[in-house]
Amino acid sequence: MLGFVLNTHQQWLCRQLADLGYPVTRQTAVPDTGPAIQDAVREALARAHLVIATGGLGPTSDDLTRDYIAALLGRKLQIDKTVLKHVEDFFALRRRSMPPNTAVQALVPEDTLVLPNANGTAPGLVMEIKPGDLHPTNQPGMLVMLPGPPRELRPMFTNQVIPLIRQRFPSPEMFVCRTLKTTGLGESVIQEKIDSALKHLTEAGLEVGYCARIGEVDVRLVARGGLAQETVSEAEAIIRALIEHHIFGTGDETLEAVVVRLLTERKRTVVLAESCTGGYIANRLTNISGASAVVWGGLVTYSNDAKQSLLGVRPETLVAHGAVSEPTAREMAEGARQRSGADYAIAVTGIAGPTGGTPDKPVGTVLIALAAPGKTKVLKPTNPYDRETFKFVTSQQALEMLRRSLLSEAAGS
Amino acid sequence: MLGFVLNTHQQWLCRQLADLGYPVTRQTAVPDTGPAIQDAVREALARAHLVIATGGLGPTSDDLTRDYIAALLGRKLQIDKTVLKHVEDFFALRRRSMPPNTAVQALVPEDTLVLPNANGTAPGLVMEIKPGDLHPTNQPGMLVMLPGPPRELRPMFTNQVIPLIRQRFPSPEMFVCRTLKTTGLGESVIQEKIDSALKHLTEAGLEVGYCARIGEVDVRLVARGGLAQETVSEAEAIIRALIEHHIFGTGDETLEAVVVRLLTERKRTVVLAESCTGGYIANRLTNISGASAVVWGGLVTYSNDAKQSLLGVRPETLVAHGAVSEPTAREMAEGARQRSGADYAIAVTGIAGPTGGTPDKPVGTVLIALAAPGKTKVLKPTNPYDRETFKFVTSQQALEMLRRSLLSEAAGS
Repeated sequence: MLGFVLNTHQQWLCRQLADLGYPVTRQTAVPDTGPAIQDAVREALARAHLVIATGGLGPTSDDLTRDYIAALLGRKLQIDKTVLKHVEDFFALRRRSMPPNTAVQALVPEDTLVLPNANGTAPGLVMEIKPGDLHPTNQPGMLVMLPGPPRELRPMFTNQVIPLIRQRFPSPEMFVCRTLKTTGLGESVIQEKIDSALKHLTEAGLEVGYCARIGEVDVRLVARGGLAQETVSEAEAIIRALIEHHIFGTGDETLEAVVVRLLTERKRTVVLAESCTGGYIANRLTNISGASAVVWGGLVTYSNDAKQSLLGVRPETLVAHGAVSEPTAREMAEGARQRSGADYAIAVTGIAGPTGGTPDKPVGTVLIALAAPGKTKVLKPTNPYDRETFKFVTSQQALEMLRRSLLSEAAGS
Repeated sequence: MLGFVLNTHQQWLCRQLADLGYPVTRQTAVPDTGPAIQDAVREALARAHLVIATGGLGPTSDDLTRDYIAALLGRKLQIDKTVLKHVEDFFALRRRSMPPNTAVQALVPEDTLVLPNANGTAPGLVMEIKPGDLHPTNQPGMLVMLPGPPRELRPMFTNQVIPLIRQRFPSPEMFVCRTLKTTGLGESVIQEKIDSALKHLTEAGLEVGYCARIGEVDVRLVARGGLAQETVSEAEAIIRALIEHHIFGTGDETLEAVVVRLLTERKRTVVLAESCTGGYIANRLTNISGASAVVWGGLVTYSNDAKQSLLGVRPETLVAHGAVSEPTAREMAEGARQRSGADYAIAVTGIAGPTGGTPDKPVGTVLIALAAPGKTKVLKPTNPYDRETFKFVTSQQALEMLRRSLLSEAAGS
């Protein structure tokens, strides 16, 4: 509540629950004080059958959620030996000594189901709320407490909490949601292209939503009720017929995951030669497990010296055309491909800003070269954004060039 | 509430209000329905003197906040001619025809102050809540409604709302906040080291908070009242005396920004040789404006072939010790430094996982070598995390090695 932490739990948990057909009716954040935590939990339990609390289960003095919720429900805390052993093992595995205050994470309220934490020390806690637990008339329900760090909360929710929710609250409303991930078109252009073709479906209840980031637009299709599946499938078919080339994936798929998958399927390798993106494309590709088989390597050639010594860009080219030029991009890509022996080479050179622009080559100028077996293509977009957005947008354009090249190679073979 | 949009307003508004000394006691998100919006606003007005509502002021069918709040407070909506003119001008300036539904944004409840929107069409609305407006006993207060898009909300809040709040709720409590950014120690270890030394200050009202990500822990010091500045300064001095080496920055500073600053001050350059981090360290450094003067370049040597041809790692070393070994890390760093002519070289080799681990070298094994003028150091941490966390933690350890080396170089000179 001091504005130091961005709450990403709301979006993530709402997404998971909506996909399963459970509507979320409220999200509340409160400061780390007893009355605030207890008021929020008491009010939530009066309002909903399922209440999920996140954070405040750690070892430090501001981790108070467990204690205050146990007190609110009148349940005693006791040491859980399995959890204590897990906390001890966690530190032993990392060859670190265990600070004594860490043991508080093994305190568990009575009548509570403990969810082991595969990625941290604090366990998840699940309490069945019975009528009369809070006040004489409260309804029955379920209270789930999850650790705050996303990398602990998310797998715990997916693997352990979802099965419990489905068992405790069966048959929610039929709800189908499909996300089509696109790149290369703005959201209003997409809407213009698909809107009228979907009219009969939206009139019958299909919801079409757009989530636009620069460089990527998600088209969301949501339908409810008995015909939800058919409605969403028909809508997807209509959209694919209109903008197929721009749809690179569905659901949570990333462009880098699609590219690594295609490279793997086609048994092709790639090498990166990055100037202004500074390793960002290599980083995105190597976030994907299995990248080691298809990414030969990358060269971050920020300096002209590096462009010459690592990629063989000719000094004459740099002098005559400059580092940010089509001939340089072309020589970077071809040099990287030749020297590495990889099938494809992506080269990027440009002006990320905020400084370095000229009237002739303003901030945002970028050249993307793709050297493929037999030919080299160069793209010249203008990406006048802040530095990190510049890197993202440029990497989208580069990966999309490679994706299309891999697809057309397959179509031609 | 379907999880398609990340709510960044809470963090941003809380930060602004906390800096001015206004504590935020609760944040609530509800679906776009009448009862949910009205319940949330009614409850908030019963709880606080100042209530800020965001979003739902636009022209589309799901923009209902204005209507439902006006109905809740029994105020009629009427067309505001100045707003209508602004909306019309907004479209005319962009040479776009004005869709008819856009005019609803000119509807304003009676007795409402209108805040012009410099970056969009929907105005902000400020209502004075008088005793009896909601129910016979409600307190007086102020209700502010702001448009949802951050690029409209933020300047409107800064330029128009803050002055109104300061005028309406004068002399808030003095509030001082300082964040110390640390790496290399877990949050419970930090707490153990500093807790008792701060006891006299926490007993007098100092709040110490921890925000822990793996690889980085923020220690936040908050004090209120007339002695807030002195209290926070004293606390900072005590903490610095205890864990100085682990504090790399304050406020919003990142480790990569500190490293680029130190390299620039010392006139030193660095080259990266990354295997398992796949360009992530190069990417972090090149996110910082000015990196081009101090980052010679980077080599992402994912394959053994790349390690040999780009860095000169000897085949015998790879055969005898493997790619993930101290001798390989050492040769990578020394090869990169020699071939580039940079002052420092960082080399990283390890097993990011989830596959590739062996009993001898499990997933998370990593070697970080720093080749500095005159000597090469190798660190052997174990980072058994998911792939992206692995990259972040490893890059923190590598950048921290370089930061300390740059500092000790300065101390020695």
